[in-house]
This record gives sequence, structure tokens and C-alpha cells, in this order.
Amino acid sequence: MGLFIVFVAAQVGAEIAQRLTLPAVVGEIAAGCVVGPAVLGWVTINEPLEVLAEIGAVLLLFSVGLETRVEDLKRVGRTAGAVGAAGVILPFILGAAWANLAGFDTPRAMFVASAFVATSAGITARVLHDLGVMGTREARVILGAAVIDDILAMLLLGAVTAIQGGGTVNVGGLGFVLATAVGFIALIATVGTQVMRKGSPLLDAPINPLSPLTLCLALCLGLAALAAHLGLAAIIGAFLAGMVAAESRQRHSMERQTQVIMSFLVPFFFVVTGARIELGQLDSLSALGTLLLVTALACVGKLVGCGLAARSLGLRSALVIGVGMVPRGEVGIIVASLGQQAGVFASDTYALIIAMSLLTSVLAPPVLKLLLARAPRAEQAAESEEGDTDEPDRVASLFFGLEETGHERRAAPARRRGPRPESEDT
Amino acid sequence: MGLFIVFVAAQVGAEIAQRLTLPAVVGEIAAGCVVGPAVLGWVTINEPLEVLAEIGAVLLLFSVGLETRVEDLKRVGRTAGAVGAAGVILPFILGAAWANLAGFDTPRAMFVASAFVATSAGITARVLHDLGVMGTREARVILGAAVIDDILAMLLLGAVTAIQGGGTVNVGGLGFVLATAVGFIALIATVGTQVMRKGSPLLDAPINPLSPLTLCLALCLGLAALAAHLGLAAIIGAFLAGMVAAESRQRHSMERQTQVIMSFLVPFFFVVTGARIELGQLDSLSALGTLLLVTALACVGKLVGCGLAARSLGLRSALVIGVGMVPRGEVGIIVASLGQQAGVFASDTYALIIAMSLLTSVLAPPVLKLLLARAPRAEQAAESEEGDTDEPDRVASLFFGLEETGHERRAAPARRRGPRPESEDT
Repeated sequence: MGLFIVFVAAQVGAEIAQRLTLPAVVGEIAAGCVVGPAVLGWVTINEPLEVLAEIGAVLLLFSVGLETRVEDLKRVGRTAGAVGAAGVILPFILGAAWANLAGFDTPRAMFVASAFVATSAGITARVLHDLGVMGTREARVILGAAVIDDILAMLLLGAVTAIQGGGTVNVGGLGFVLATAVGFIALIATVGTQVMRKGSPLLDAPINPLSPLTLCLALCLGLAALAAHLGLAAIIGAFLAGMVAAESRQRHSMERQTQVIMSFLVPFFFVVTGARIELGQLDSLSALGTLLLVTALACVGKLVGCGLAARSLGLRSALVIGVGMVPRGEVGIIVASLGQQAGVFASDTYALIIAMSLLTSVLAPPVLKLLLARAPRAEQAAESEEGDTDEPDRVASLFFGLEETGHERRAAPARRRGPRPESEDT
Repeated sequence: MGLFIVFVAAQVGAEIAQRLTLPAVVGEIAAGCVVGPAVLGWVTINEPLEVLAEIGAVLLLFSVGLETRVEDLKRVGRTAGAVGAAGVILPFILGAAWANLAGFDTPRAMFVASAFVATSAGITARVLHDLGVMGTREARVILGAAVIDDILAMLLLGAVTAIQGGGTVNVGGLGFVLATAVGFIALIATVGTQVMRKGSPLLDAPINPLSPLTLCLALCLGLAALAAHLGLAAIIGAFLAGMVAAESRQRHSMERQTQVIMSFLVPFFFVVTGARIELGQLDSLSALGTLLLVTALACVGKLVGCGLAARSLGLRSALVIGVGMVPRGEVGIIVASLGQQAGVFASDTYALIIAMSLLTSVLAPPVLKLLLARAPRAEQAAESEEGDTDEPDRVASLFFGLEETGHERRAAPARRRGPRPESEDT
């Protein structure tokens, strides 16, 4: 019964949010708040829900990895590289500084700070796509930098989870743990992707026609277990498995298929995340003040960091890029969940970081639209270039399975109806 | 880690079984035996595995329901109707008689007997498809009768689970429970399907392009919870939700999408099922004798029951139909799982029924091939008629998402390579 309520709440929340042109994830988390103990109390989080939520988070990061290609990294160029790096460093410093002032000890402050780091390319990509400016230089820089961000964020998260371990910090042991984390990530990201590039025809060897998907899901579960075994977050393994799978020639069909599995499992993650929020933690004036401060720091970190790195493109482009990198989306939310489950974040920090991730995701799109409103529409360019840029076009991938059956015409009306949901949000 | 081992074991087992031209489900259950406590002990069944296995079973029955259309029921004609009914009644009587003699009390004996009842159309459909005789009269009768079997099996299972409840059997209370079970199933199967036939365009109303699937999955979770609330098996609700979804005009894309989700979750069900088997229960001579007796009864029940009902078609056709109805497949396995979890079946009965379900599924295809080997190949007829008969062509549905992307050519080599896995088996 709990599963039913959670799943329906997710669908209703996502629908309401999207009608209000908000990201679906906002609706799903709000729905979790509403049906959870904080408001209606219809759902209590039990083991089945936790299991499904965790599998949902693993799949979510697998799909983020699936959109992160080594190829793209090589192609993004110096500007995107600088934007990505600056977009990690400055928010991390700001986040760590705030957390230190707020009284966290150093390992915890670094965990808080890593929630400031990641960029949710999905939300920005949707806005860019809706405005028909996917082919512009700004869009390329943002999407390239977001890929770099994802990888740096995972490296950081690996390091940060590794140092949470014991209360006593031993410099030698810490170095070893950090080296393990970085080594694991680097090894899989380089050797794994190389092996996959050469070996991807083997994915088709089994009789099962879905074998590329099932083998990569097996890899995902295996690397997640291995990451957990090494003391890292399981989702890091899932992300790396996605990155490896992205190198296969079957990546497009896998992306579509992953969307379908996610549509069943990821709602459990977001609703459970919402249900864990103790709304009481946010209804004092001082808590709201803290939330505003933290959100402002998170925005400034990306805006200034990325903007400065992109200053060579001119003020307006630098602004567009800075704003485009602001949304934290699902990665910030996952870091908050991890922190709560590891006992690193108390319920106030958890609520704060979820709220910050949602606020940045809600605030950036309208500003971005405003900035781009006067830009020349490049719809034609976008259409023709999307094919060869190989950008994470989840929008199109969501039409999967619909165009091929002639008698079901959903694509057109859905496109008319407004912004498309991103994969993380459905 | 457990999840990883289970998932990989399922893939390996399925692959080996299919290379040996056995149904994949045999390999997955055998893999569960091997990695489970009975042999290697690599996996212990914990709560996460149980949760995923149960969700897998629910999805499996949803997909069986998705292939059961009211339309088909109306069209099967008198012969198929008689075959379906006889194929339920005789095996049920034989099963109940054996169980009674073996010392089960009446409610338990009826539970055992309901594992004798269901037909797995998937396994037979694959053989018929491979031989290119899908368009023949025998194939139509078998597939029509299998649909009737599924519904009668669910009715029976509803009644049988309802009467397990208390130790004391109260005739008034029993009547009430039975009426609830039958009423629930009849109501959803008639009113639900009617509503869906008219309302299916509404499934497209939400913004989410996967909304037909997610809404029907919500229905599935809801009816499963409702069935459990009424004291019935949750999978009955899932089956009914599938039947309702089968009336929508989006059923074909839903079938494909359900296959993908199943490819991730159903292996957990089969492997956990296998891991629960205590092999020790089957390694005495008397246990093997019992297994052979039970399997023989299960075969005879269908062969004689269905064969007699189809006698008007001639001896050979009646034989083909009788053999075609023998495989119990996944439905027998699910009944065994339910029985074990409800504490109705001890571990010896559980092992026995699983083994019987697998044996019938393994024995029938070669016999069927032998019987049909001399039949005129009707490949042409099968090809042209499949489109309008709307038969559960899971084989084609498994190619989903592959044909539309021009650069991935799996369909052809896979078709060459041999029999296709059925949905329940992958």
C-alpha cells in the first residue's frame, strides 16, 4: 500500500510541478513531504521503500554516467574545461567556509561543501532546448562543463565519503583511503571505458536481445557494490558504470531503456527523499535566513566561478554560462541523502541542502530565459547540429518507443504542451 | 553485493539454459539453487532481495495480464473455451486428489492443486513460433485456451488464498470471503476493462511521455495492495491491472516497456525462488518418485483434459493441443512461492512444485516439436495473420527499441541464433 501511495504521489506531484513549468523533481519531493510524516503521515518509510529508493538513486546516477562520455571531455575545449573546474572549486570553497563558520568539523564541512559542487545539466539543457539555442556556443560550453563537473563531483564525493570513516583522523590512513578512492575512479574511468570501446560488440553475444542493457546493469550493480566495499558511496560505482556503458555502440538504445526502468524506480527515491524532510526544521525565521544565505552562496559560487572562467566570451555569454551552471538538481539531493543516511547530516542540514538544491533548480531557468530572450533564435542551427554533437538529448530519448508504432501519436501533442520532463525528473 | 551476484547468476543461468535450448527460466532458477544456501552459499536471502523478488513477481503477473484481452476471450470460440475449462478442471481434481492422499488437509490440498492448473502460454508460443505454425488452428486454440486458463487460475487462486486464513473454517465466513474474491476479480475484469476501453486517451493527458506506462504501473501497485487487503494474493491484483491495461490503445508500447523493466527486476524473483529450494528435499529416491508421479499427473491432467475437449479436431490436433497446454512455467512457480511464504507449503512441497513446473516446461517443447515436425509449414500464413490476430507476440515485442535505431542490428543475428527468450524467462 505504501508503494502505491508513494508512486501515485510522485506522478501527481510531477504533473502539478510541470504544469507550473517547474522541474518535475520539485513536485516529486514536495509530494514526498506531503504524504510523509511531516504533513499527512500516510506513508512511513519502511525497508521496502528504502530498498527501492536506493535502487532508484543507483539507476539515476547510472543514467547521469551514461550521458558522460570521454569523447565529450576531449572535445569541450579550454573554456568549458576552465568553466567546469572553476564551477567546482569556488562553490566548494564557499560551501566549506560557510559550513565551517556554522560549526561543522572539517570532514563534515567538506561533505556539506560537496553538495554545493555538482551541476544538473538536465534542467539547463531543457531550458536551452525549449528556447532553441542548443547549437550556440554558450550551450556547448555549459553542457561540456557540466560533464566535467559531474566527474569532479564524483571524485570529490569519493574523497569526502572516504574521510568520514573514523572519528580519529590519521594522516597516513587518510592518504591511503584517498588514494584508493581516486585510483578506483581513475582506473574505471580510463581502463573501463577503453575496454568497453573495444569490447562493446560482445554485449550482443548473449541470446537475450536486451543483453547490452542487462550486462551494463550487472556492471552497475557490481561497481556499486565494489565502491561500497571500498568505503565510497555506491552511487559513485553506478556513475562509473554509466560512463563505461556510454562508450558502447549500444548506448542510445540503453539510454532509452534506462529511462523506462527509471520511470518506475526513481520516483521512489525522490518521494522518500521528500518524506524524510522534517518541515519543522525550516519554519523558523532563522532557518529561512540560513536557507537564503546558503542558496545565495551556492548561486554566487557558480555564477562568479563559471562566469569568470568564461569571461573571454563577453559579459552576456559569461552571465548565461554562469546562470546555466547554477541548478544543483538531483546530484545535490543525492549528496544530501547520503549524508543523512551516513549520519553526517542532522535533519536540519538535510532539509537545508535539499531545499537549496531545489531552489537553485527552480530559480535558474527563469533567469536563463530572461537572459536568452533577446538572443537570436537559432532553432534551425539547433536542429541540424544536435545530431552530430551527440549532446545528452534526453528530450528526444523520452519519445522512445512511441515513434516506431505508427498508431500512437504522442510526440506531437506532448511537444506542443510545453516543456518536456528531464530524465531525472520523471 | 548480494544483488550483483543474484543478477549476474540470473544472466549466466539464462544464457546457459538457452544455449541448451531450454527455457531461460530453468537456468535462472538453477542459478538460484547454485548461488543460494543449498550449494555455494554465496547469497543469503535478505530483505532487499525479497523486496525486489516480490516486485519482480508482481511485474511478471502484470505482463501476463497485459497479454490477456477480453476481446481474445470472446473470439476463442467453443473449442478453445472447452479446452481451457477442461485444462483447469481435470488437473485441479488430479492435484487435489494426490495432495489429499499425500496427507494435506483440504485447504492446503486445494492450494497444491492450484499449482497444477495454470498454463504458461509463453513457452508453447515460442515453440509454435519457431516452427512457423502460429497461424494454424491448433496454435489459435492453445493460445485462446491459455488465456482462459490464466483467468480461471487467478479466480481459483483468489478462492484458495482466501480460504487459507484461519485454522477454523466457518462456512458462512468462507462463503463471504469467496464471494469477495470472485466479486473483486469479476468487477475489475469487466468494469475495469470497459472503463479502460473508453478512457485510454486519458492516459496520455499527463505531460510525462511515459504516462500510459506509469499510470498503469500505479494501477498495478494499487490493485495489488487492494488484493492483499482483501486477503487475496497481491499478484492477482497485478494480473487484473495488466488485463485492464491490455484494453488500452497504448498496450503495445506498454508491453515493450514492461519487458525492459522486467529484464531488470524479474531475475531477482526467479533466482530467489531457486535459492529457496532445499535441494536435500529432492535427493532421496522416494522424493524423486514423488516428483515423477506429480509431474506425470500434471501432464496427464492437461493432456487428457485438453485433448478430450479438442477431440473434435482429430487425434493429432488433440494431441498437439494437449501437449501444448502442459507447461506450467512461471505461474506454477509463483503459486509455489506464495504457498511457501504463506507457510502453507513446507520446504519439501515447495521444492516439489517448483521442480514439477520446471519439468513440465522442459518436457513439453521437444514433444511438441516432434508432433509438429511432419506438419506442413505455414510460415507464410503465420506471418500474414499475426498482425490481425493480435496474439501475444512477445517474441516481436522483445525487439523493441532495436529496429528503430538504424545503426544497431541485433534482430537478425539473434533470430538466426535460435529460439527467442520469452518475457517470463529473461
